[in-house]
Amino acid sequence: MSKKLWGGRFKEDTNSLVENFTESISFDYRLAEYDIEGSIAHAKMLGECGIIKENESKKIVNGLNALLRDYKSGNLEFSTALEDIHMNIEYLLIKRIGEAGKKLHTARSRNDQIALDIRLYLRDEINKIIILLEKFQVVLLECAEKWQDYAMPGYTHLQRAQPVLLGHHILSYFYKIKRDNDRLRDNLKRVNILPLGSSALAGTTYPIDRTVLARLLNFPKISDNSMDTVSDRDFLIEFAGISAIIMMHLSRLSEELILWSSSEFNFIEISDAFTTGSSIMPQKKNPDVPELVRGKTGRVYGHLMSLLTIFKGLPMTYNRDLQEDKEPLFDIINTVKNCIEIYIKMLPVISINKENMLIACKRGFLNATDAADYLVRKGLSFREAHEIAGQLVQYSIENKYILDEIPIEKYKKFSNLFDKDIYSAISIKNCIKTRTSYGGTSFNNVKKTILREKKKMKG
Amino acid sequence: MSKKLWGGRFKEDTNSLVENFTESISFDYRLAEYDIEGSIAHAKMLGECGIIKENESKKIVNGLNALLRDYKSGNLEFSTALEDIHMNIEYLLIKRIGEAGKKLHTARSRNDQIALDIRLYLRDEINKIIILLEKFQVVLLECAEKWQDYAMPGYTHLQRAQPVLLGHHILSYFYKIKRDNDRLRDNLKRVNILPLGSSALAGTTYPIDRTVLARLLNFPKISDNSMDTVSDRDFLIEFAGISAIIMMHLSRLSEELILWSSSEFNFIEISDAFTTGSSIMPQKKNPDVPELVRGKTGRVYGHLMSLLTIFKGLPMTYNRDLQEDKEPLFDIINTVKNCIEIYIKMLPVISINKENMLIACKRGFLNATDAADYLVRKGLSFREAHEIAGQLVQYSIENKYILDEIPIEKYKKFSNLFDKDIYSAISIKNCIKTRTSYGGTSFNNVKKTILREKKKMKG
Amino acid sequence: MSKKLWGGRFKEDTNSLVENFTESISFDYRLAEYDIEGSIAHAKMLGECGIIKENESKKIVNGLNALLRDYKSGNLEFSTALEDIHMNIEYLLIKRIGEAGKKLHTARSRNDQIALDIRLYLRDEINKIIILLEKFQVVLLECAEKWQDYAMPGYTHLQRAQPVLLGHHILSYFYKIKRDNDRLRDNLKRVNILPLGSSALAGTTYPIDRTVLARLLNFPKISDNSMDTVSDRDFLIEFAGISAIIMMHLSRLSEELILWSSSEFNFIEISDAFTTGSSIMPQKKNPDVPELVRGKTGRVYGHLMSLLTIFKGLPMTYNRDLQEDKEPLFDIINTVKNCIEIYIKMLPVISINKENMLIACKRGFLNATDAADYLVRKGLSFREAHEIAGQLVQYSIENKYILDEIPIEKYKKFSNLFDKDIYSAISIKNCIKTRTSYGGTSFNNVKKTILREKKKMKG
Amino acid sequence: MSKKLWGGRFKEDTNSLVENFTESISFDYRLAEYDIEGSIAHAKMLGECGIIKENESKKIVNGLNALLRDYKSGNLEFSTALEDIHMNIEYLLIKRIGEAGKKLHTARSRNDQIALDIRLYLRDEINKIIILLEKFQVVLLECAEKWQDYAMPGYTHLQRAQPVLLGHHILSYFYKIKRDNDRLRDNLKRVNILPLGSSALAGTTYPIDRTVLARLLNFPKISDNSMDTVSDRDFLIEFAGISAIIMMHLSRLSEELILWSSSEFNFIEISDAFTTGSSIMPQKKNPDVPELVRGKTGRVYGHLMSLLTIFKGLPMTYNRDLQEDKEPLFDIINTVKNCIEIYIKMLPVISINKENMLIACKRGFLNATDAADYLVRKGLSFREAHEIAGQLVQYSIENKYILDEIPIEKYKKFSNLFDKDIYSAISIKNCIKTRTSYGGTSFNNVKKTILREKKKMKG
Repeated sequence: MSKKLWGGRFKEDTNSLVENFTESISFDYRLAEYDIEGSIAHAKMLGECGIIKENESKKIVNGLNALLRDYKSGNLEFSTALEDIHMNIEYLLIKRIGEAGKKLHTARSRNDQIALDIRLYLRDEINKIIILLEKFQVVLLECAEKWQDYAMPGYTHLQRAQPVLLGHHILSYFYKIKRDNDRLRDNLKRVNILPLGSSALAGTTYPIDRTVLARLLNFPKISDNSMDTVSDRDFLIEFAGISAIIMMHLSRLSEELILWSSSEFNFIEISDAFTTGSSIMPQKKNPDVPELVRGKTGRVYGHLMSLLTIFKGLPMTYNRDLQEDKEPLFDIINTVKNCIEIYIKMLPVISINKENMLIACKRGFLNATDAADYLVRKGLSFREAHEIAGQLVQYSIENKYILDEIPIEKYKKFSNLFDKDIYSAISIKNCIKTRTSYGGTSFNNVKKTILREKKKMKG
Repeated sequence: MSKKLWGGRFKEDTNSLVENFTESISFDYRLAEYDIEGSIAHAKMLGECGIIKENESKKIVNGLNALLRDYKSGNLEFSTALEDIHMNIEYLLIKRIGEAGKKLHTARSRNDQIALDIRLYLRDEINKIIILLEKFQVVLLECAEKWQDYAMPGYTHLQRAQPVLLGHHILSYFYKIKRDNDRLRDNLKRVNILPLGSSALAGTTYPIDRTVLARLLNFPKISDNSMDTVSDRDFLIEFAGISAIIMMHLSRLSEELILWSSSEFNFIEISDAFTTGSSIMPQKKNPDVPELVRGKTGRVYGHLMSLLTIFKGLPMTYNRDLQEDKEPLFDIINTVKNCIEIYIKMLPVISINKENMLIACKRGFLNATDAADYLVRKGLSFREAHEIAGQLVQYSIENKYILDEIPIEKYKKFSNLFDKDIYSAISIKNCIKTRTSYGGTSFNNVKKTILREKKKMKG
Repeated sequence: MSKKLWGGRFKEDTNSLVENFTESISFDYRLAEYDIEGSIAHAKMLGECGIIKENESKKIVNGLNALLRDYKSGNLEFSTALEDIHMNIEYLLIKRIGEAGKKLHTARSRNDQIALDIRLYLRDEINKIIILLEKFQVVLLECAEKWQDYAMPGYTHLQRAQPVLLGHHILSYFYKIKRDNDRLRDNLKRVNILPLGSSALAGTTYPIDRTVLARLLNFPKISDNSMDTVSDRDFLIEFAGISAIIMMHLSRLSEELILWSSSEFNFIEISDAFTTGSSIMPQKKNPDVPELVRGKTGRVYGHLMSLLTIFKGLPMTYNRDLQEDKEPLFDIINTVKNCIEIYIKMLPVISINKENMLIACKRGFLNATDAADYLVRKGLSFREAHEIAGQLVQYSIENKYILDEIPIEKYKKFSNLFDKDIYSAISIKNCIKTRTSYGGTSFNNVKKTILREKKKMKG
Repeated sequence: MSKKLWGGRFKEDTNSLVENFTESISFDYRLAEYDIEGSIAHAKMLGECGIIKENESKKIVNGLNALLRDYKSGNLEFSTALEDIHMNIEYLLIKRIGEAGKKLHTARSRNDQIALDIRLYLRDEINKIIILLEKFQVVLLECAEKWQDYAMPGYTHLQRAQPVLLGHHILSYFYKIKRDNDRLRDNLKRVNILPLGSSALAGTTYPIDRTVLARLLNFPKISDNSMDTVSDRDFLIEFAGISAIIMMHLSRLSEELILWSSSEFNFIEISDAFTTGSSIMPQKKNPDVPELVRGKTGRVYGHLMSLLTIFKGLPMTYNRDLQEDKEPLFDIINTVKNCIEIYIKMLPVISINKENMLIACKRGFLNATDAADYLVRKGLSFREAHEIAGQLVQYSIENKYILDEIPIEKYKKFSNLFDKDIYSAISIKNCIKTRTSYGGTSFNNVKKTILREKKKMKG
């Protein structure tokens, strides 16, 4: 293939180094189906609008459908010399159906064509990720339900703070993921806009009808400005930003699973099927999956930064720099999907060391706030109560007590508002049960929340 | 101030180096009004719910209102030893109203308090930015209107591609900014949620009523999970991501203004009031403002990356790392607002060298596509027409012609489909006029678009 | 001050919004001393080369010295209308010494002047950071020495892997910091180059002698190309990159201190003076300092990204975008210095729970590798030995043994190569003692390493 | 392959989803040669030190050499079930030579093995990049020489500032690239350190001799601390940082080539062989290569950010997150090499429109500084001279003059220091010729610089 489709004014052939440097077919082949789908709609529209003849249109559509079948059965071969997926498909079409094929590119440019392909592709993928995230939300709800009444230490600063329910803890991730999903849905509104018909940059002189294209390709909106359309990928950077947040959330859950799998925490055991061993240390069972997810966060952050860098300071309209948007996008989608999928599988088969979690609640003075609250209910100001509870903790550390073990006489030395009911007031069960404020960790709250969200998910 | 409000269990004073290292009052003082506003609502709610006495509640509210007045008149002094805005305000309140002040922090933690302050602050700032962006949209529409029928080269790859209208070009930015605004509105839904009442991490044992808080502070939603609430700032990272896209868009417009201000383009002149000179070269008039805006893009990209990094791999719930979210946030807001404001002022007073733009349309074969389209209308396939037009360009370069100057006999040597009407077909005016596809650059389209969007802006 | 020093060709005054948008004096005042120092050298050189008169030169130098004194005693006032530090100093000089002051800017531009100021400033700051890092290295060596024979679990994947010495662990950070320091020294070679004399971009027509400047300002090298000199800040981006690695290293040490401070690990206690409490939970003692250091990592990563973004795609030579290099630079230097300083103070006063570390070594099968090695020494291939040791671990978990407690008869069931000497072979002490390979954790190695590195530090 | 080499303690098989998620063989196969090379050295050392028998050592070495041959001839097949390159090679070795193969992994872990592989690989690649950069430096020198006396406008703020030589402009890139190369050489010192022998994290109990390994693998230094060695990749992040700076430099050159290729500048023509056309606009000849290089800058910036993110806050020592270091590294190396290579080929065949560059020098008042300098030489202070030159420019713009065309009588109205010699003083040739300060653009300087640097390159 020595002659390029755009070669009219060129006297020299493309340098082969350049061919390899500039080609995108090695990665944009992923868009093949979308490219063909878009071309089918374009050909139909050209026919409907009388820009090409009805039979030409049909010939092209049939040819493209044949190519699609070949592609799906693995029988299409692409060539680097043809640069990109658009040129490859067009070339193969012409080879297959002859002259009519040369009419397909009427009233179209690769600039609006690639914008279409990416939007079709990304629309599909976002919808897939939304479904995956919903599945993950269901898994989180199910785990929260299963573990709803397991008491564990809640942490701030990685210090034991107050007892919470594992179900409550898991629900905190449910809501993070839910917001991620909301963001994707908002993003979708901006992805789901027809770019085709913007042509190279200025629109076209052919009497095209973009509403036909929108109908055929199922776009609720049509882009309003041709220059904007071929120059921008902000919908894609927005997607990358949302993905970075998804990975940030997964990195935090991963960090926790890694901590909880350590001998020191020993709160959970990740199934053998989701861990690997060491080539040298026979005892090792490593939480590789959460570690890799945490590591892959860097990958998505990096791609976001790549995309932002690419577009910084680019003048209107299409610049070849935009070709660099695809590999990061593909890798983000791949990474996010894989990470969610593996979490969907891994989370439900984690086994919880309920007993260890409970023991952990007992050491670390997690009920000190409740001791202070006790005094407040007896009439002290919170600041004074906080001060006394702090002294109790200090005293307990020095005497190797836990608050539950301090004798009542001692309590009274700190404040004579203390009475025997202090022991039940600061029992772990009570600490949890009484946190009934909306969004708090009480048994009742957690139960109701799970039911409410399950219902919504079904709705 | 030697004694910390949390100092009950501590035996040693805080190291002064540590005090300086950990304090945040030097920057979170910006949240003072929001902190007081939140505390007022909290005190009212504590009173309404009977957690503190009515008169205590009133005393606190009055005290806080007095502090707010003092703050606004510049009469509040904050202390580094008191760490942050919350401790400072509480300390000043206690100093002013005595014992009752110590009851304010009942059923609250700094963890949900800071979440509240940031949300109140960011809600306000997003609303301001939305208004600024709307003003900027209006400015863009007005400029587009004023310059609507100025022909100029449209570029791809910074090569002259096809003639467009300056109005059309300006509208391409209008739509970018419009999407940015849409994104902010979506973001606002996730900012506008009441966090207060989540307490330290687990909710509270006091019989608080969060709906009262939501009503007083004007939040349409209440956060659902206390651990999620105090651990996450994803609404803020989302905002940073949107801001990065806004700056990306401004960097592109800036790049174009810089290009257009160069002697080579010479399309525009930025007003003296918006340029600066050189300390050594007397002739210089530099487009400093667009250059700085382009440079400030780095600043916002960087802050986004900071925020993402901070949250990577953090376990639940609040960690002190979160304190680092504020300075980037403040600087993003500052940067974005300043950049939009200056654009609002600078753009309308740019003077356009209409003549130069028109001349530029004539060199560069911007009508070659139209020559090809001409042949297509006469029956050639697009691919063949494209090939012939390419040869015409090659021929013209070699003979120092522009397409409009090639004699008709020569035209016919390339294809005898050419006729005298080729000259009107490829006139710049015609090239523009005929791009009537929806979103295309035709005079009519641009006019209608401006009217439509102006109407919408008013609506 | 209505008239700018560059105002010759301007008809309109600068818009005041623009003045605020473009000024840099609000942050580049930090360069005042360096700006004056550079101007003094410049004035001397102009005098020596006969470009200005000797007495003019002296007058300028005296005037600048007077300004320097005023600056140091806090008696200089800068004005936003004068944009930047250069214009402010020049204006104040002229105000003070009259006409002669107007000659200072001969053969110079703000473009090479700012390049000089930054290089002088950064050279100083890098030298300060090098000294701080050396102090930190000494602290690490002293801690390693103090804790050299404390056994603790070494981790991979946050799973207990093999016992190591805390001294060995601390030394691992010593070497990281040492490399950071090496990098800074390499960076310094590229910072320490005289830019002055490059003028606006093309050099100057005045008969200046740059070797005089280099001598006066103590630069070992002179920049070779004027356009390169005023256009580039790669030495500064290199510094930002090194700083990001420093922070990365500190973030890892911080993570470990946070983990070790948790109730679960309970390996260390950070001094009260370096921790803070909770406003609600009286028992809390939070590792705020390491948390903040970890968080501040994001800040430095972000600034690196800002700087890289700023310079992406900028044409030659100076562009106003470069003004944005300063605030990130200042904040990086500030952050890195503060973080190292606080570590220098905090690390030595950490108290180690030696006993807990030792106990942790006993659970987690950290000697399983040694059990395998034992079998290898008895003739098995490593792969078979690894397999058997793995089965022993599995058996122990199921029977709640540790390896040291399995009876010898049981051992023999797994392999009859086992004999009674297995118990001493897998004792923690022996596990450590026998890791004598260069760089390994044996008592002897750690001791020798500390001595060797202490000697080098002194050398 | 159902049984993992580390499977002793595992009861369940690895989930196949996990296998795909955790495998690295799909990308770390690139390290095959280095892995084998390292294993050969390890086997030899084990033999020399008597840890395995001489004949076993030989058998292993022979087996590995056979595998290497097979690999090079494309006859090795790797399996995903075997996770990574290490396990694959070991498995194939055992399959080929039987029992002896199981002894290879004695006194070694995958943790120090992968550190070795990456260092061997990166050492090789850095050396290749250094050679490429040197070739590029030679190309830049040759181009500078070829175009040394072509006058062109030097720019600041993309405004014409002062005339320079194209040779001088090209040399500014020569020095940037030279520094990049210096940085790589410094980096190499930190890459070129033997990690093997650190084992899993703590060193090994076998009597290995790391100096033998260092000799066999040609490492001048041996790592000092086993935990540091397996936990860190700072040498690699440093490399990524340097690569980002290289790309930043190339992005700037690319931006300039794109600008110069525009119709507006029309300074250069990139060879047909290095440009591509448009699918729709027949006249287009796009500077795709520089555009793509500029775009690929984002890719490398992003990978740097990925790597920094991965390592943020990781505790000692090896964590699975580190596996994510490889793909960014591979892609950085690939990108940087490709971009330099294509520049080496493209730059020399660019054709310069010398005439246009010269014409551009004449418009834009590039000699205004020289007019001011003229007055200074006649005794005015620079500040006054600058002011007058500014007024001259203003006057010229209003009257459509260039400075060279203002009649002498008019000149005298601005200052009677002006005389007829003003015209020669401000001729472009003179403006260039007289900028003789070291590093300035004078003809003589540029010539001497080229000779000097050519000599150094040969030295």
